[in-house]
Amino acid sequence: MKQIKFLILLCIGLFGLSFQAQTDEQVFKEIYTQSLTNGKSYDWLNHLSNQIGSRLSGSLGAEKAVIYTKAELEKLELDKVWLQPVMVPRWVRGSKEYAYIESSPGKTTTVNICALGGSIATPALGIKSQVIEVKTFKELDSLGKDKIEGNIVFYNRPMQASLIHTSEAYKGCVNQRYNGAVEAAKYGAVGVIVRSMNLRLDDLPHTGSMTYNNLSIKDRIPSAAISTNDAELLSTMLKLDSNIKFFFKQSCKQLKDVQSYNVIGEIKGSEYPNEFIVVGGHLDSWDLGDGAHDDGAGVVQSMDVLRLLKASGIKPKRTIWVVLFMNEENGLRGAKKYAEDAKRKGERHIFALESDAGGFTPRGFSFDCSDSAFSKIGKWHTLFKPYLIHYFEQGSSGADVGPLKTETNVLAGLRPDSQRYFDYHHASNDTFDAVNKRELELGAAAMTALVYLFDKYGL
Amino acid sequence: MKQIKFLILLCIGLFGLSFQAQTDEQVFKEIYTQSLTNGKSYDWLNHLSNQIGSRLSGSLGAEKAVIYTKAELEKLELDKVWLQPVMVPRWVRGSKEYAYIESSPGKTTTVNICALGGSIATPALGIKSQVIEVKTFKELDSLGKDKIEGNIVFYNRPMQASLIHTSEAYKGCVNQRYNGAVEAAKYGAVGVIVRSMNLRLDDLPHTGSMTYNNLSIKDRIPSAAISTNDAELLSTMLKLDSNIKFFFKQSCKQLKDVQSYNVIGEIKGSEYPNEFIVVGGHLDSWDLGDGAHDDGAGVVQSMDVLRLLKASGIKPKRTIWVVLFMNEENGLRGAKKYAEDAKRKGERHIFALESDAGGFTPRGFSFDCSDSAFSKIGKWHTLFKPYLIHYFEQGSSGADVGPLKTETNVLAGLRPDSQRYFDYHHASNDTFDAVNKRELELGAAAMTALVYLFDKYGL
Repeated sequence: MKQIKFLILLCIGLFGLSFQAQTDEQVFKEIYTQSLTNGKSYDWLNHLSNQIGSRLSGSLGAEKAVIYTKAELEKLELDKVWLQPVMVPRWVRGSKEYAYIESSPGKTTTVNICALGGSIATPALGIKSQVIEVKTFKELDSLGKDKIEGNIVFYNRPMQASLIHTSEAYKGCVNQRYNGAVEAAKYGAVGVIVRSMNLRLDDLPHTGSMTYNNLSIKDRIPSAAISTNDAELLSTMLKLDSNIKFFFKQSCKQLKDVQSYNVIGEIKGSEYPNEFIVVGGHLDSWDLGDGAHDDGAGVVQSMDVLRLLKASGIKPKRTIWVVLFMNEENGLRGAKKYAEDAKRKGERHIFALESDAGGFTPRGFSFDCSDSAFSKIGKWHTLFKPYLIHYFEQGSSGADVGPLKTETNVLAGLRPDSQRYFDYHHASNDTFDAVNKRELELGAAAMTALVYLFDKYGL
Repeated sequence: MKQIKFLILLCIGLFGLSFQAQTDEQVFKEIYTQSLTNGKSYDWLNHLSNQIGSRLSGSLGAEKAVIYTKAELEKLELDKVWLQPVMVPRWVRGSKEYAYIESSPGKTTTVNICALGGSIATPALGIKSQVIEVKTFKELDSLGKDKIEGNIVFYNRPMQASLIHTSEAYKGCVNQRYNGAVEAAKYGAVGVIVRSMNLRLDDLPHTGSMTYNNLSIKDRIPSAAISTNDAELLSTMLKLDSNIKFFFKQSCKQLKDVQSYNVIGEIKGSEYPNEFIVVGGHLDSWDLGDGAHDDGAGVVQSMDVLRLLKASGIKPKRTIWVVLFMNEENGLRGAKKYAEDAKRKGERHIFALESDAGGFTPRGFSFDCSDSAFSKIGKWHTLFKPYLIHYFEQGSSGADVGPLKTETNVLAGLRPDSQRYFDYHHASNDTFDAVNKRELELGAAAMTALVYLFDKYGL
């Protein structure tokens, strides 16, 4: 019996030694090989996209996604899986929107629009009015009440094609969508039409969140996105005749908040269980497509980080949490709730990584941290180069992990190739077929490798 | 009159100064902005793909492509545009191939195959035989004549998913396609079926070149590619019953060589007209899709390099040639002809750059050159980083520029993101819609920027 015990201990010792003897390079290779040959992210995304579909906060899809991802995490035999309750807004699109340009009475051209998330409906019979095209709020201000009152404001500033990071082009335009209604309402506009945030010319309207700020209910005006092709058409027709009219009709509405959840899974740390590393994406999506890139990809990659750590034989020293945040798109309630709870409990989050920029080939990471932390992280860069992870820069992280920011911790965002992202972002073509299996798996592997390093070396 | 002359000279001088005063950073910005806002590559590719279509050497499509690209280059008001004659092989596919697996007499499952380029036809009634599956030539050798004679050999070694550069996975498999028939014919096989060179599981067979080497005509056997899904199916069915039969029928044939052309355009160098810089891609494509990625993308990007140089106000010191090579896919005749002529005329090619790895987001360049040349080139890398061109490595260049190699010159290949390339390579889905406009334009800009540096600084 003693001999058997000795043999068992010897085996454990040898196994431990053999694992400890692995270099970071070897661990990276194992993680990547696991992800590219036995990855689960693509199968999970297939289910999320094709069996569940869109997952707008408060929808049946969102509820199903909570149940499904919790069940899948439970299959991974993590140390713990649980739901964190959070109340979320519930906005519904209603029937499909309808819009046309009327160049003369009875002569109309149908165009493609969609209500912006959070917008009110038009009156049941729609709105028809003249259109005032502007590129900026400054231009709107200069036109004033005289020109705007009673009309529809058409925001038509395109994303700037010459910018290399498409996210910068997005940032340069998105205030039209988010604040356009509030700004136009100041001058008595009756509605707002916004050029879709899309670098490509096509027929798809792209939704996204908008705000009314403190605007009283009676002053709120409906707001919709128009496809880039139709924005070009409308602009051209306005140049030919500024008196043409625009009609649109939408029946969306904001309902009462409903109960929903963040989904959380844990591998407990063996040495420092009270130091937390978070990896996550957001479980909700817009309602037009399947939310495959935004952010189904981030969800399944984050889930696979925990699975890949286990499959690669890594036993974390620190506690690793995967967090699937609810309601990033139109409220960020899940992220706020998570951060509040973490603060209240005094949990020390040393590192939080988000994937919410599409499932495309990963190019690197953006780190929100101090210069001294970054100088340490920067040294890991060479480990990633054989995997074509070249982008290691200080910058923003992600909307969901943002609220976890402290003076000493590190937040990060996966940075996939961004060139195609806005072709799909918040539109009906954000579907499973637009995601490439290898690209998705490379992202999951890169995230796992970074989590491995943070766990091993701490801060 | 003197005053006017003086003013003109002053203007020229100021203009010259103002251009010379531009930093490399400013020139890069101008090139990228031009390409992303006024690029021509995407429109040209639309025509090549959708109006002309596939361009296999000797086909009507290839002839139309020669005429079209020559005419488009002429519109650019280059210093010279001409055709370089070259005789090319002409292989035709004939009617659509047909194949099935027969699990028992009368019980058949149709599968997707396509003849490999250069293969002979099957007999008019097709071939039906038992199938021997192998993964390697070594395995084939070990089976020998006993097991192989009279049977169809099925090469089923998949591309290795764990490799990060998909081109390496391709290199690890492509001998099955290129040499499979010759090797199997040694042991009396009656035909060859090869798993498509595709990392993805789908229903599309991928063609590509194969050889008979010196095999006498009577010993040649037909060779076809099977889709990855059907390769998996066939392999599974063979495991259940090794006696199942495979039928295939194809009517392809090799015709007589025909006259074709490389298309060449020139901007003459202002200081060193006898130092040549070449940028190119190949004009021919396989016949199944439109050859949009392979290599329509490289063709239009190369054309746009010369246009972008002009549009950015750059007056090259050295002579810049765009060369659209004919017959890369099944003979490399255009490239060989071009290199022979260059050698015969004693033309000094200091730099040649090829784009032939798809129209995806450019990641960098691979340089085939001496260490000393590379240490100089490496210093340019920082200029490219704001444009997310991170990959600057010594390595291979491209099949068409390869024959231009000397001891002192530099050959290079654009290295786009490779993850999706083999999803489309040589298959019917290599079509215009699989190419993203911005990704294509970023490649053209990166190429132009590199040509600008070689022109400015020489070697």
